[in-house]
Amino acid sequence: MPAGTLLYAQSGGVTAVINATAAAVVETARKRKVKVLAARNGILGALREELIDTSKEPASAIRALAHTPGGAFGSCRFKLKSLDEDRARYERLIDVFRAHQVRWFLYNGGNDSADTAWKVSQLAGEFGYPLTCIGVPKTIDNDLAVTDSCPGFGSAAKYTAVSVREAALDVAAMADTSTKVFVYEAMGRHAGWLAAAAGLAGQSPDQAPQVILFPERAYDEAAFLAKVDAVVARVGWCVVVASEGIRDAGGRFVADAGGGKDAFGHTQLGGVAPYLAGRVKDALGLKVHWTVPDYLQRSARHIASMTDFEQAWAVGRKAVEFALADRNATMPVIVRTSQAPYRWKIEAAPLSKVANHEKKMPPGFIRRDGYGITAAARRYLEPLVRGEAYPPYGRDGLPKYVSLRNAAVEQLLPPYEV
Amino acid sequence: MPAGTLLYAQSGGVTAVINATAAAVVETARKRKVKVLAARNGILGALREELIDTSKEPASAIRALAHTPGGAFGSCRFKLKSLDEDRARYERLIDVFRAHQVRWFLYNGGNDSADTAWKVSQLAGEFGYPLTCIGVPKTIDNDLAVTDSCPGFGSAAKYTAVSVREAALDVAAMADTSTKVFVYEAMGRHAGWLAAAAGLAGQSPDQAPQVILFPERAYDEAAFLAKVDAVVARVGWCVVVASEGIRDAGGRFVADAGGGKDAFGHTQLGGVAPYLAGRVKDALGLKVHWTVPDYLQRSARHIASMTDFEQAWAVGRKAVEFALADRNATMPVIVRTSQAPYRWKIEAAPLSKVANHEKKMPPGFIRRDGYGITAAARRYLEPLVRGEAYPPYGRDGLPKYVSLRNAAVEQLLPPYEV
Repeated sequence: MPAGTLLYAQSGGVTAVINATAAAVVETARKRKVKVLAARNGILGALREELIDTSKEPASAIRALAHTPGGAFGSCRFKLKSLDEDRARYERLIDVFRAHQVRWFLYNGGNDSADTAWKVSQLAGEFGYPLTCIGVPKTIDNDLAVTDSCPGFGSAAKYTAVSVREAALDVAAMADTSTKVFVYEAMGRHAGWLAAAAGLAGQSPDQAPQVILFPERAYDEAAFLAKVDAVVARVGWCVVVASEGIRDAGGRFVADAGGGKDAFGHTQLGGVAPYLAGRVKDALGLKVHWTVPDYLQRSARHIASMTDFEQAWAVGRKAVEFALADRNATMPVIVRTSQAPYRWKIEAAPLSKVANHEKKMPPGFIRRDGYGITAAARRYLEPLVRGEAYPPYGRDGLPKYVSLRNAAVEQLLPPYEV
Repeated sequence: MPAGTLLYAQSGGVTAVINATAAAVVETARKRKVKVLAARNGILGALREELIDTSKEPASAIRALAHTPGGAFGSCRFKLKSLDEDRARYERLIDVFRAHQVRWFLYNGGNDSADTAWKVSQLAGEFGYPLTCIGVPKTIDNDLAVTDSCPGFGSAAKYTAVSVREAALDVAAMADTSTKVFVYEAMGRHAGWLAAAAGLAGQSPDQAPQVILFPERAYDEAAFLAKVDAVVARVGWCVVVASEGIRDAGGRFVADAGGGKDAFGHTQLGGVAPYLAGRVKDALGLKVHWTVPDYLQRSARHIASMTDFEQAWAVGRKAVEFALADRNATMPVIVRTSQAPYRWKIEAAPLSKVANHEKKMPPGFIRRDGYGITAAARRYLEPLVRGEAYPPYGRDGLPKYVSLRNAAVEQLLPPYEV
C-alpha cells in the first residue's frame, strides 16, 4: 500500500461522463490500496479544506457513479494565477495537502484546469513539497490540445447529431402548413466542434442540417439568409445549426445582437438561435422554430456515446497509474492509432503542451461554402459518437443516477477564505 | 379481401411515436388484405388528391417506421369548418374518396383533428357517401378527452423528466461558483401536462425541479421570485420548469412579455424561459441558464417510453379493426383498468365526446402551493414514462430512422386549390 493520499477534483463545466472518469479513479486507486479523497467544488475545496472521503462510498455507488451525469463532488469555475501572483494560495494548498498527506493530485477539467494542474505540478520544485500532479482531460468543447478527442465531447456530439436528426423529421412533416425553418443552437464559444457534430445527422447537402454556422467563419447575414431561402425553395424546409460563438466580420458576437433591456429596464436574455430565427422571420417571412438545449446537451447521459464513455473511464484509470508512477505534470491523452477500424490508446502528454493551447477545428473540416462539414470531419467525428452507453433505468422509467454520501473529512486547519 | 381502400392521414404537431401508429395501421391492414393509401400532409393531401401508395413500401420499411419519429407522410395544421360552411371542400373530399374507392378514413391527430374526423364521419349521413371514419389519438399535450392518456405524451413526458433530472445534476455541480438557477421551458399552451411530467424527476420538494409553473395557475412574479430565492438559500441552487402557456392574473401570456422589436425594428423572439431567467437575474442577482427544447421534446424517439410506444401501436391496430367493423365516428381510446400493477386496454369512444373537449389537469394533480405535483399526479404519470423503447442504431452511432418511398398515386381528378 503506497503511503499517502490521492486527491481528485472536478473543474469547469461538467459533462455526461466526467463521473465515469471519477469512478475509474476511485476504483483503480482502491485496487492499488490507495486512499482517495475528493475536493468539494474543484480546487476551491482543496483551498477551503472541504474534502470528501470516498472510502465511505460502497462499491455499488462507485459503479453507479460511472453512469451518472453532472459532477458528483461539485465543480468550479476558478483559475489560480501564477505561482508568484497567487503565492499565498499555493502555500495554503500545500498546507492542506500536507495536513491530509496528499501525495498525488488529479485535476479533471478543460483548458483552464489543465493550466491550474500545470501550475500545481510545479509546487514540488518551487516549494519543495513532494507532490505528483496529473491533469485529466474533460470538455464538451473538444478544444484541448494534444489529445485526439476530449472525454465529454463524444456524448454531447451524439446528443447533438441525434437531436438534429430527430427534430428535422418533425420539421419535414410540418413544413407544408407550419414551420419551415428550425434553428438549433449548439454550445461552443470559440470552436465549432459541436456544431460540426450536428453535420453527422445528414449525409448530403439537402439533408438536415442544411446550414451550419461555425465560429471559425464570419457570420454574413445576407449570405446566410440567401442560403436559407434557397434551401427552403429546393427542399421545402431548412434546419440551421448555429454555434453560440458565431461572430460577424467585425468580431462582434451575434448572440449579443439580440437581448438587451426592454422598455421596463428588464434584461432580455438573447441567444444565437432566437436571434437568427427572428432574422429569418423578418427577412424571409417564413415560420420559424428554434431551440437552445443549453445544459441538456452536456448532461445527456441517457444518450452517451460508448466510445466517449470508454475514453472517460480510460483517462481516469491511466491518471491513477501515471500518478502512482510519479509522472508529474502529465495528462493522459487519447491517441488515435487507426482510423478504419477506429482504434485508440492512452499516452502521457506533458501538461505544458496542453495548458493554454486551444485546439480549433482544422480548416479542412469545414466545407468550402462554409455551411457544412467535409468528409474529413465526418471521418474524425463518427467514431466518437459510436455506440450507446445507456444507463440503467428503474421501474419508474427514469435513469438510476446515484447521489453519493460525500462524507466530509474532518478539518485540521483553521478556516480559509478563498 | 374487403372491397375498398383505407386512407390514413396524420395531422397536427407530430410526435415521437405517431409513426408507430402509422406502422400498426399499415401492418394490420396488410394482414387483413386491405389496401392502404396515405394522404400527404393530412387532410390537405386528401383534398389535393396527393395520395401515397403504402403498398410500395417493403415490410422492412414499415417495421422501421415504427421506431422513426416525425410524421412519415407529412402532417398539417388545417381545420375544416362545419359541413354547411365548407360544403365545397367536403364535396371535393367525397370526389377524391370515390375516385380511389376510399371506404375507410383514419385521421390521426389531436383535438382539432378529432373535430375534423368527427365532421368527416358525418359525410355518410349528409352526402350519402358510404364512409367509415375513425379518429386516432395522438398529442404530446395529453389534452384529448375520454382517453386516459394520449399516444405521444408518454415519450415527451419521459424526455422531460429525464432531461430535467440530468440538467439538475449539472446545475448542482456548478452552483458554488456558477449557475444557481436553471429554467426549463416545457410545451403546453393550455394544460401543464408536460411541466407536470418534469415533476417525476424529483421525489421531494428540495429535489429538482423545485419550482414548476403551470398554466392552470396564474403567474405571480413576486411569489415566484420569493420561492426561487428561498430554494437557492436552502438548497444552493434551483431548477424551474415553466409551461410555455403560463399567464399572469390578467390572463396575459408571460411569453408575450418578452420579445417584441429591437431598436432596428428586428423581431426579438421571446419565450417563457429566457423571460423568467431575465427576471431572476435582475431581481435576485443570480447567475441563470435556461433551455427551450422546443421540437426536441416531441421528436425524441431515442428516449421514447415503452408504454407510450405500445399504446401508439395499439391505437393504430384497433383503428383498423374498428374501421373494418364499420364503427363509424369512433376513436380507439386508452382505458386504465388497473393502477397497481398498471394495466390498460383499448375501447371505442364516440368521436362526438372527444371532439372539441380539452382535458385539463385535475386540480388535485397540482400541489397546494402551486409549484409542484401531488402523489396523485405521480401515480397517474409514472406508468406512462415506463420502459425504454430504444430505436436501433447504426455503426455510425446514429439511430436508423427510415425515409419512406412515398410513391405518389396517379391523380384521377382535376387539380384543386385548397
